[in-house]
Amino acid sequence: MKKLLIVYVFLFSIFFIYLYNYHLKEPHSSPFGQNEERLQGEIGEKYVLVTFQAGIDYWKSAIKGFEDAASELNVSVEYRGATQYDSHEQITVLEQVIAKNPAGIALSAINPYELKTTINKAIEAGIPVVLFDSDAPASKAYSFLGTNNYEAGVTGAHKMAALLDHKGKIAVVTLPNQLNHKERTDGFVETIRNEYPDMEVVAIKDGKGDQLLSEQAATEIIKLYPDLKGVFATEANGGVGIADATRSLKKEKAIKIISFDTDKQTLDKIKEGVISATLAQGSWNMGYWSLQFLFQHNQETSTQQQSVQSAILPKYVDTGISIVTDENVEDYYAD
Amino acid sequence: MKKLLIVYVFLFSIFFIYLYNYHLKEPHSSPFGQNEERLQGEIGEKYVLVTFQAGIDYWKSAIKGFEDAASELNVSVEYRGATQYDSHEQITVLEQVIAKNPAGIALSAINPYELKTTINKAIEAGIPVVLFDSDAPASKAYSFLGTNNYEAGVTGAHKMAALLDHKGKIAVVTLPNQLNHKERTDGFVETIRNEYPDMEVVAIKDGKGDQLLSEQAATEIIKLYPDLKGVFATEANGGVGIADATRSLKKEKAIKIISFDTDKQTLDKIKEGVISATLAQGSWNMGYWSLQFLFQHNQETSTQQQSVQSAILPKYVDTGISIVTDENVEDYYAD
Repeated sequence: MKKLLIVYVFLFSIFFIYLYNYHLKEPHSSPFGQNEERLQGEIGEKYVLVTFQAGIDYWKSAIKGFEDAASELNVSVEYRGATQYDSHEQITVLEQVIAKNPAGIALSAINPYELKTTINKAIEAGIPVVLFDSDAPASKAYSFLGTNNYEAGVTGAHKMAALLDHKGKIAVVTLPNQLNHKERTDGFVETIRNEYPDMEVVAIKDGKGDQLLSEQAATEIIKLYPDLKGVFATEANGGVGIADATRSLKKEKAIKIISFDTDKQTLDKIKEGVISATLAQGSWNMGYWSLQFLFQHNQETSTQQQSVQSAILPKYVDTGISIVTDENVEDYYAD
Repeated sequence: MKKLLIVYVFLFSIFFIYLYNYHLKEPHSSPFGQNEERLQGEIGEKYVLVTFQAGIDYWKSAIKGFEDAASELNVSVEYRGATQYDSHEQITVLEQVIAKNPAGIALSAINPYELKTTINKAIEAGIPVVLFDSDAPASKAYSFLGTNNYEAGVTGAHKMAALLDHKGKIAVVTLPNQLNHKERTDGFVETIRNEYPDMEVVAIKDGKGDQLLSEQAATEIIKLYPDLKGVFATEANGGVGIADATRSLKKEKAIKIISFDTDKQTLDKIKEGVISATLAQGSWNMGYWSLQFLFQHNQETSTQQQSVQSAILPKYVDTGISIVTDENVEDYYAD
C-alpha cells in the first residue's frame, strides 16, 4: 500500500511537471484564441551600435536607449566604437562588425561620404543598417534617426526671444563649415529675422568647437557690441567658452547664453546661472528606435505576413529637442 | 491508508497547481537573471485610431499597421472614423473616444486648426495622442508620423527625369491651395529647375482633386504644348483624369504620367501602361509606429525606469515614399 502511494504521488508529480513545462514553452493561449505574448526575439540575435570617439559622454543616452529596447525585445546588443575622430578607424571597426554577420547595425557616421561604401557593403551582405545622430544620405542605409538641426535652431531662437523679452542684439558662435551647425545657425537666424523685428543677430563667429577659441570669439563680439543681450552656441564647448568670456568681462547678468547638448560642464553652468538654457537632443530616442527599427525589419523579412509597405522602414525620424533650464537641470544629470 | 493516499495526492496536486499558476503570472526569470519576455501590454489596454471619410480604401494600410503592432504588443485596438469630410463630425467622434478614456489615440486630423482644442483636451486628460498622415502642428500632440510631401515631390521629379532621359517639357496637375499638395509641387518643380537643365515645367494647373476637372486641365495643357513629355499628378484622381486625357488625344505613348497613392484605379492604369509610375506613401508605417509610440509612452510613464529623455517621443517620423511601376504593381494590390 505504501508503495502504491509513492507510485501515485510520482505519477501525479510527473503529470504536473509536464503541464508546468508545457506552459512555460508554449505561448499562452487565452480561451479566446488570442496570442497573449508579444513578439520577441532570441537572445542569440545580436545587434551592434557603432560610433566614433567612443569614450565621450555624448553617446551614453543613445547606448542606454539601445539597451532598453534590447531588454524589451529580448535580444543581445554590443557597443563598438572607433576610439578617435578618424574615419579610417571607423571604417575598420565597421568592417570587423560586418565580418561577424550581426542581426543589424546602428551607426553614427563620422563622415557621410567616406563611410558610404562600407555601409552599402553591409546592406548587400543582408545586414540591415540604420543611421543615427549623423547621417550618410547617399548610402543605402534604411533609415536615419537624429535631430532636425534647423528646427533645433528655431527652438533656440524662440527661447532666446522669451529670455530677452523679444528685443536686443544677439550673436551666434558656431562651426560655420560643418553642416549640422550651419543648419542650427540658419534656423536660429532666420527665425529671429522673420519673427522678432526688435531683435537683431549682429555677429556670427567661428568658435571651432573649442572652448578657448569660443571664449576669444565671444570676447571680441562683446567688446564690439557692449549692449549685446544674448549669445547662442551651436555646440557645448562654445557655450562654456562664452560663459567664461561673460564672466571675465563681468557680463554674466547682462548677457543670456543658450547652449547645445547636456554634458556635465554645461549642466553645472546652468545650475550656477551662467548659462540660461541648453538644447537637449533626443539621444535616448535615437538608440531606442534604431533597435526597434532593425528588429521590426528582421521580423518582416523572417515572417510570412510581410507586405511591401511593412518591409520598408520609415526614412527619417526627428528625435526632437527639449529645453533644459535651472528648473529641470537636475533631471538631466540622471541621464 | 487509502484516505492518507488521497490526502497526499491532494496536497501534491495543490502544490503543483500553485507552482503552475505562479509561473503563469510572473515573468519567467532565466537562471542568468535575464528577463526572458519582451515587455507586453494587457489586452484591456485599448488604443483607438481615428480618421475621417472612414469608408475610403486609403486608410486600409494604416489600420493594418495599427493592428499588426497591436497583435505584437498584445493590446486591443478600435477603429473610429467620421463618415464624412466634416471637421465637426470628427470633433464629435474624438470627444466620444476621449469620454471612454482609452490608453492612447492615433488621429489623422481633418483640419489642423479646428481639431486643436479637442486634441489638447485629450492630452490634458492624460490620454496620449499622436497624429498621423495629416498633422495639427499647433496642438499638444506628442508626435506626427506622415509623408514628407516636399521630399515626395523630389522623388517624383527624379523618377520623371529618368523616364524622359533628362529632357523635355512637363506639367503638374495639383491642388494649389492645399498645403500637402503645394509641398509636393514645390519639391517637384524645384528639383527639375535645379538639377535638370534640359527639362522645363511649362504649366501648373488646378485639378481640384477631381477626375473630370483634371482631365480638362490636362487636355488644355496638351493642346497648348503639343510636345509635352510628362505630367505629374499630386493626387490619385488627377492621375486617372490625366490618363483619360492622353487616351482621348491618342498621346498615351508620347506622355509619361506619374501619379500619387495606390488606389485600385491607379494600379490598374499602371498595369495597362497608361500611368508610368505612382508614389506610394508609407501608410502601414504610420499606423504601426503610431501604436508603438503610444505604447512606449505608456510604458515610460508607468514604470520606475523612466528618464527625462525616454519620456519624450520623437517629434516627427517621415514614413517614406516608394515608387510603384509595372514591375512591382502586383505587390501593391495585396496591401
